[in-house]
Amino acid sequence: MNSTVVTGIGELVTCDGTDPDLLGIRSNAALVVEDGMIGWIGLAADAPAADTRIDVAGRVIIPGFVDSHSHLVFAGDRSAEFVARMTGQPYDGGGIGVTVASTRTATDDELARLLGSRIDEMRALGTTTVEIKSGYGLTVADEARALQIARQFSTETTFLGAHVIPAEYLHDRPGYVDLVTGPMLQAAAPYARWIDVFCEPHSPHAFGADEARQILKAGAAAGLGLRVHANQLGPGPGVQLAVELGAASVDHCTYLEDADVDALAAAAETTVATLLPGVEFCTRSPYSDAARLLAAGVSLALATDCNPGTCYSSSMPWVISLAVREMGFTPAQALFAATAGSAKSLRRTDIGRLVPGNRADLTVLDAPSYLHLAYRPGVPIARALSLTAAAEMLAE
Amino acid sequence: MNSTVVTGIGELVTCDGTDPDLLGIRSNAALVVEDGMIGWIGLAADAPAADTRIDVAGRVIIPGFVDSHSHLVFAGDRSAEFVARMTGQPYDGGGIGVTVASTRTATDDELARLLGSRIDEMRALGTTTVEIKSGYGLTVADEARALQIARQFSTETTFLGAHVIPAEYLHDRPGYVDLVTGPMLQAAAPYARWIDVFCEPHSPHAFGADEARQILKAGAAAGLGLRVHANQLGPGPGVQLAVELGAASVDHCTYLEDADVDALAAAAETTVATLLPGVEFCTRSPYSDAARLLAAGVSLALATDCNPGTCYSSSMPWVISLAVREMGFTPAQALFAATAGSAKSLRRTDIGRLVPGNRADLTVLDAPSYLHLAYRPGVPIARALSLTAAAEMLAE
Repeated sequence: MNSTVVTGIGELVTCDGTDPDLLGIRSNAALVVEDGMIGWIGLAADAPAADTRIDVAGRVIIPGFVDSHSHLVFAGDRSAEFVARMTGQPYDGGGIGVTVASTRTATDDELARLLGSRIDEMRALGTTTVEIKSGYGLTVADEARALQIARQFSTETTFLGAHVIPAEYLHDRPGYVDLVTGPMLQAAAPYARWIDVFCEPHSPHAFGADEARQILKAGAAAGLGLRVHANQLGPGPGVQLAVELGAASVDHCTYLEDADVDALAAAAETTVATLLPGVEFCTRSPYSDAARLLAAGVSLALATDCNPGTCYSSSMPWVISLAVREMGFTPAQALFAATAGSAKSLRRTDIGRLVPGNRADLTVLDAPSYLHLAYRPGVPIARALSLTAAAEMLAE
Repeated sequence: MNSTVVTGIGELVTCDGTDPDLLGIRSNAALVVEDGMIGWIGLAADAPAADTRIDVAGRVIIPGFVDSHSHLVFAGDRSAEFVARMTGQPYDGGGIGVTVASTRTATDDELARLLGSRIDEMRALGTTTVEIKSGYGLTVADEARALQIARQFSTETTFLGAHVIPAEYLHDRPGYVDLVTGPMLQAAAPYARWIDVFCEPHSPHAFGADEARQILKAGAAAGLGLRVHANQLGPGPGVQLAVELGAASVDHCTYLEDADVDALAAAAETTVATLLPGVEFCTRSPYSDAARLLAAGVSLALATDCNPGTCYSSSMPWVISLAVREMGFTPAQALFAATAGSAKSLRRTDIGRLVPGNRADLTVLDAPSYLHLAYRPGVPIARALSLTAAAEMLAE
């Protein structure tokens, strides 16, 4: 067994409680990592001996960010669409087809290389777990291929054959739902932990409530957990459908009616509302009202939604800064949502919190306090701590 | 003479014109650096021989960002004030006194170390020129000291004794103006290129129009160029005063009346309006309307205003992304304002544009197009290119 003691921690943020206002911050703390797991946390003065020692020189240690919503398996560039949107063109989901075309023609190696470089970028910004959706293949073979590639990088893979209705099925929606719930699900399920649907009556490209219910139920029957894209472009049935079906996460939640908030609050143990402020930034949408959701007792997560159309950012610190500026999160609530909250949305208890027995997914901040995640927007102060490389990096 | 040829440039953004909509983009280009200056730009196929060769592997090269407004000489932490403001407390300039107290008690070495690390952070984010203001000393000795330290890192130093009225002069404003225009100016001028005033009748801590005029005229008489903090907290006389006195830059411009816009448009050759969207983000202020200013023909710059109170960000890419999302800049206009525009606000023609004879201050983007500065918010895709370190860095 290989053990490492981490000392010199200016502030240890454990997120070891259940109250998003409390981060379980410890001073004068040290922790011991044993074979990738947290073996011990306590006062530095009491730290046991270990094979190696890393001194982080007063920096902050937080749980690695859990980015619980991303679409990283893609090829092609949509910066021109972004520019058009910044000059007033609205988003309706139609641009997804552009990425589908590029992704279908890319080789496996190219997709794996692109995905790997995006995950490296995320780690360099402090993310240690990332959920990865398919959804730019939209054929049986291309969806299975995307998930096989994603599975090389993450266990949190999500089958999103129901991302949009592909162009070739626009006049046969029931035919596409049959494909998604039949052969495509069968081919995808071995490589997926989750199933997801873009439930959005406001987009002709997305799925209505009945279609979404049918797809999610088929996924559950195949043993997959449920996630839903809902209420992104306007009020709709998605949030209540997600709660009704016991989904682990309902994502976007930009437009919520009181009944949606009530349903989310009542389901707080089961269903997490995952907010995606980067999308609202990049699509000029109104921001979700996190303060309202927190007051109601809703469980919240924050994620990037990193994707080439509506938010090509991999930065959880930037998401946190936006959540504080625009959504009514306090810095503590935002960090909790980006770690323990997003872990809960993946039904994981071994990540997102630094407690003995959990994975030692540590992120280090070049700052005296976690407050700097919001206080220093756009500055890359966070990075995932590689224990093997750490001594060298921190000596710089 | 040492020469380096830079090849493999995916997109060379020169900003070599005067129209902010046109970036002077060249394809298949190479450039030669001779002793830190640009010696040649042309088609890669025609590149002359050089001592060394750097291949940037398809990346974008842009002029290094010119961050024409910063307050980097300070000690202490104001993250708690930031959190208070995010939960509703308004900004009135009063927090500056907290930093004044911390800065006065810091040693020269500590201030130089802190300043150096902030400039390193900026270079790592693509900035190659930074203007640095004093203004956290507010005594004769402390202001001179701040400028002496700043001068070790930049030629663009600005005497800002008139940042706020220090607590000890709150009941003797004329006495403080006499100090600033007398002994403090005399002590500061040898280390400063510019003088600046926080002209803001909406803050009891800042200076009114008559006070500001007196201070700026004294600075001009001492040979300093003029800059003004104006119209940040509400409409006021600052913009028109800056134009009247021929200031090189008038900064913030958050609240403008039609007469202010007209004055800035008429003075476009002389006076640049420097917009600071990061401040508006971090103080929950409305954003300046850049589209209105561009339509009127006003010369614009973008800068961070990096400081511990109202915007502790050193990231020009983040500023560009905000300018596009919130102020009505196109990505091209924002990049022009952050390079050629901010160089103009410093009355410099040797930086901010990549043309033969100019400084070879190159910034490289890990992206296929400059559009990614806005398209990838929060992602550190830009870095200043160190020619000596480049071969190693780019090989990674």
